Amino acid sequence: MNTSVQRIGILGATGYTGRELIRLLVNHPAAEIVFATSESEAGTPLRALERRAPSLELIRAEDAPFGECDVVFSCLPHGHSLHWVEVARAAGPRVIDLSHDLRVPRADAAPWTQEAVYGLPELHRDRIRGARLVANPGCYPTAAILTVAPLVRTGMAGAGPIIINSASGATGAGRSPKRQLLFAEIAEDFSAYAVGNVHRHLEEMRHQVGLAAQGGAPDLVFTPHLLPVRRGILQTTYLPLAEGVTVRDALGIWAESYSQEPFVEVLEGRMPSLRDAVGSNRVSLGVAEVQQLEQPMVVVVAAIDNLLKGAAGQAVQNMNLMCGFEEALGLP
Amino acid sequence: MNTSVQRIGILGATGYTGRELIRLLVNHPAAEIVFATSESEAGTPLRALERRAPSLELIRAEDAPFGECDVVFSCLPHGHSLHWVEVARAAGPRVIDLSHDLRVPRADAAPWTQEAVYGLPELHRDRIRGARLVANPGCYPTAAILTVAPLVRTGMAGAGPIIINSASGATGAGRSPKRQLLFAEIAEDFSAYAVGNVHRHLEEMRHQVGLAAQGGAPDLVFTPHLLPVRRGILQTTYLPLAEGVTVRDALGIWAESYSQEPFVEVLEGRMPSLRDAVGSNRVSLGVAEVQQLEQPMVVVVAAIDNLLKGAAGQAVQNMNLMCGFEEALGLP
Amino acid sequence: MNTSVQRIGILGATGYTGRELIRLLVNHPAAEIVFATSESEAGTPLRALERRAPSLELIRAEDAPFGECDVVFSCLPHGHSLHWVEVARAAGPRVIDLSHDLRVPRADAAPWTQEAVYGLPELHRDRIRGARLVANPGCYPTAAILTVAPLVRTGMAGAGPIIINSASGATGAGRSPKRQLLFAEIAEDFSAYAVGNVHRHLEEMRHQVGLAAQGGAPDLVFTPHLLPVRRGILQTTYLPLAEGVTVRDALGIWAESYSQEPFVEVLEGRMPSLRDAVGSNRVSLGVAEVQQLEQPMVVVVAAIDNLLKGAAGQAVQNMNLMCGFEEALGLP
Amino acid sequence: MNTSVQRIGILGATGYTGRELIRLLVNHPAAEIVFATSESEAGTPLRALERRAPSLELIRAEDAPFGECDVVFSCLPHGHSLHWVEVARAAGPRVIDLSHDLRVPRADAAPWTQEAVYGLPELHRDRIRGARLVANPGCYPTAAILTVAPLVRTGMAGAGPIIINSASGATGAGRSPKRQLLFAEIAEDFSAYAVGNVHRHLEEMRHQVGLAAQGGAPDLVFTPHLLPVRRGILQTTYLPLAEGVTVRDALGIWAESYSQEPFVEVLEGRMPSLRDAVGSNRVSLGVAEVQQLEQPMVVVVAAIDNLLKGAAGQAVQNMNLMCGFEEALGLP
Repeated sequence: MNTSVQRIGILGATGYTGRELIRLLVNHPAAEIVFATSESEAGTPLRALERRAPSLELIRAEDAPFGECDVVFSCLPHGHSLHWVEVARAAGPRVIDLSHDLRVPRADAAPWTQEAVYGLPELHRDRIRGARLVANPGCYPTAAILTVAPLVRTGMAGAGPIIINSASGATGAGRSPKRQLLFAEIAEDFSAYAVGNVHRHLEEMRHQVGLAAQGGAPDLVFTPHLLPVRRGILQTTYLPLAEGVTVRDALGIWAESYSQEPFVEVLEGRMPSLRDAVGSNRVSLGVAEVQQLEQPMVVVVAAIDNLLKGAAGQAVQNMNLMCGFEEALGLP
Repeated sequence: MNTSVQRIGILGATGYTGRELIRLLVNHPAAEIVFATSESEAGTPLRALERRAPSLELIRAEDAPFGECDVVFSCLPHGHSLHWVEVARAAGPRVIDLSHDLRVPRADAAPWTQEAVYGLPELHRDRIRGARLVANPGCYPTAAILTVAPLVRTGMAGAGPIIINSASGATGAGRSPKRQLLFAEIAEDFSAYAVGNVHRHLEEMRHQVGLAAQGGAPDLVFTPHLLPVRRGILQTTYLPLAEGVTVRDALGIWAESYSQEPFVEVLEGRMPSLRDAVGSNRVSLGVAEVQQLEQPMVVVVAAIDNLLKGAAGQAVQNMNLMCGFEEALGLP
Repeated sequence: MNTSVQRIGILGATGYTGRELIRLLVNHPAAEIVFATSESEAGTPLRALERRAPSLELIRAEDAPFGECDVVFSCLPHGHSLHWVEVARAAGPRVIDLSHDLRVPRADAAPWTQEAVYGLPELHRDRIRGARLVANPGCYPTAAILTVAPLVRTGMAGAGPIIINSASGATGAGRSPKRQLLFAEIAEDFSAYAVGNVHRHLEEMRHQVGLAAQGGAPDLVFTPHLLPVRRGILQTTYLPLAEGVTVRDALGIWAESYSQEPFVEVLEGRMPSLRDAVGSNRVSLGVAEVQQLEQPMVVVVAAIDNLLKGAAGQAVQNMNLMCGFEEALGLP
Repeated sequence: MNTSVQRIGILGATGYTGRELIRLLVNHPAAEIVFATSESEAGTPLRALERRAPSLELIRAEDAPFGECDVVFSCLPHGHSLHWVEVARAAGPRVIDLSHDLRVPRADAAPWTQEAVYGLPELHRDRIRGARLVANPGCYPTAAILTVAPLVRTGMAGAGPIIINSASGATGAGRSPKRQLLFAEIAEDFSAYAVGNVHRHLEEMRHQVGLAAQGGAPDLVFTPHLLPVRRGILQTTYLPLAEGVTVRDALGIWAESYSQEPFVEVLEGRMPSLRDAVGSNRVSLGVAEVQQLEQPMVVVVAAIDNLLKGAAGQAVQNMNLMCGFEEALGLP
């Protein structure tokens, strides 16, 4: 097993994800941050973001020494990331892109983008191990795909759409100053957004569920909500079963699918709440039969920390796999 | 229109619902509180609960002068309310029961309970006007039934269950000191409970949806969640449409159904959040098509204040109807 | 007593104070809003801010029909307000300025500014009644001055500074999108700011305390804090007593001073919390002796709603006085 | 330096402090939990409190194998702890008592209690190293004493009391189900309690400040407040300086006093907020001059995590010292 220290660059360090990534890497026994970028805060000491960070200043992306790195993470916004990922990759390092830009293959994309491996270790661990370019999954899709995949892979998903009802803490909406994200707007409130299957993440969910289903994937309906908490996603998913499949057949497949997974737990006898996952890289799942229904259905409740398993934690998990480290190295 | 002042008694005044009811009645131009009960806090001045309350002390239910009242509200817990409702009713006054005890007819119940009218004015206004005994709806059912009724009444509901995903603020869980309701447990958390169609309120929803459907009501799946806010319910409901019904047919039926309702608003172009309803007796609804689906489906988001339209506000609305007052009298 | 409806203009309607003012005026039986301005949101219907507002669109200040108004309120930011107050005043209406600009007399200010009366009714009611220009007090100063004035007026304040330790909800920091006001920054946090007597409001407190003391006012030390709540100020004030003054002498002076005040309550036997004041125009005070001290001292805890008694509510109270209405008209 | 694993017993494991202590000890490289007690939850697996705990069940205190332990922590309530500390101590192990019972010497106490060393390492490190019985400081006193001691030790404290204005998150009030600690009571509220120098912790502050002052300690005034957050204490302290002492003399003494301390940081150029301390064993201090005052005064703002440096973290720091471990071993 590899133990050599990796030299790390971070693109877009000042958002919530970037800061969480710095925090993780500072505690990682085989990582050394060599640069971190911010267009708007270049010149600020990295220690203003994280006390134990090395004594570096934030630099602009155009000044980043990509060639000196073994691994570059991009926490740049969707749309802006692609360019810098291409630049970083061309300079040699492995690249992990936390934006949406490479998660779903596009017919009109540049050929090099096809190298990107979707960084959900529970589904694609072997391909991630050999990858030089990883598209780190979105926060909602991480919970959704890990919930739906066991059912569609075993052919147990029935007719009728799978309803994915999710709620995320405010760090999921980013750190840009927007009026609708002010404390006085969000506290004591709760709302749905992107209602009616219009959220960007749906495409990513559909693509991965399709791969897991190997054809014949069920329809998905996805509604995100904004919670008055800082961190965490709780997802309640309604899964109709195929004809002839009993709830008893289905209930056990999540525990089976994930029995060897270091970062997935299937609770017995209770449902997870945010508290089960926030602060860790864990996906916490609970499964229940829906009673008093004509057609059998199960409900799966999933909790993750949107900044850890939903972003920076999973990115470090991917780095560990790509670099030959123990998968859980440096993760809480 | 009646304007004579009604003399009011309140059973179970110290919970969140009881206190909200006192607050409303103190502001109501045609109500005068003559007693309020609490078994555990008898002797406490009513003004300790609400500054502008009359100068009364809380008394025990057994000491309540039911015969001096025109209207008695019961905010007693489920199971305890039935007995005192019977006592109050026998003494003469009109009775509005905010507990679960009379909301669903039971074959084995005493004959007098069959007089109870389900106090959802938007569905049963005329019967409420003449009623002497009203079963005030539950908080979750108020939002659920008002959401589902227009679809099933018009025969537009399709095969496949209607999924009702709801989240309530902590006052919905009551004011009894329980560890799981402590601030330090609920803040920064979010959880599902009664997962798998095992919540008490489901029976009430099913009964009323069945009446609205006049046979052939669709299955319901209901999952409540506990929000880290003080007040409010936000409900996201997934409604599959019948074959041959287009989304275009369905989208308008909520606005049509409720165009004359003083306490239901159907938003255009946006979805409600808690903020749209908290502090008012309003149900705020938003309707959207679900895109990219094989079978047509609409999503309806509903917001109510669990203590107002979901409890005390609706109870006063019922009182207004029963007493011949203007329906909105004294309501925020 | 006057009952004729006043025609109202509002400068700067889209901040938290502006919106609260609209909400109050819409419910006020003798007010009719004729215009409301916003530079950034001109063209937006006023009903987007408040459901029951009249059917008007926000306009730019330069298009405001000042001459058609009886009363103009300015909720413009400090520094920007002065100009528009001058314009409004010149056109005829009475003006109530909620900014800092006119609260403290300045030697170098234009002569017309000297007409401004400091709009704290409990101290200056008679002058407000005749005023055509009122400087509405700041939120922190309202609580501070009402706390300190009774002691200094009676000459009971001792040597040593009066310590005013205050904490405000996030609406007090305004509605402009700033990173440090995001939900994810403020939730689960608490902080002091402007530490060391450098907050703008101190000047206003000092000026009014000086007037109340009629010379010889004690030093003030003021530290504001930012609370993770939406509304409300809680202020804990430490008041050393003059030599020879006993705690017993002092304890009663707040109740005495404010016994006739409609919007000040002095609690007995308990201290106020935010809950006592939020949602009302009330100042709620509690007074306690500090035990085990060599020099006698009392502590006064005060709660107000920063948007009501601390801003829009007090502005309406001032309007009521200026227009000859009942002082509490239209106030919660 | 010692590295041998210590066998640990925990009395009173199910409160917030007990759970935090378990969490710390599970991560501590030289600690092994051998028992944990709870009177009300005996029989419950320890893993219900903390996922990574050893496979033990909670037992009753009377069944605890004290003699098998090297160190026993008591997280029992004030008043109940003393008895079990005596029992534990008599059986051999070192004992760290997190209750109030041994923090202040009492004339009428049993002779064995005089062995107790006050476990504030920054003041009493050497005595803690040799101690077999440590009284772990209270949460408020930890912040207060570390703030006041540098000033009084150097004789710079002036006449006039030192005002200590503190605010704590809800975990500081314990995990017993009490109505006033419900989410719906505390959210969006803020209140002072034990106003007027009547809080139990004052005695502890006074005793330690007296020791630091070596006679002539200033008066203290202490007001605690309850914050709507889960964890953390923010303390704003007003320190009058002695005649002839300039602010310039005083400002540097905190940085000087604590320059070698692993768990105290003195910020430059800004004040701490809860965020600086929550989740760590750190005390974070900021110091500022109070401007525009006749008598010189400095303000010190301090932040700690009430469950870590204010309780369980400091207890582990004490264990590390008592057992000859590196002081920061196993601490975040």
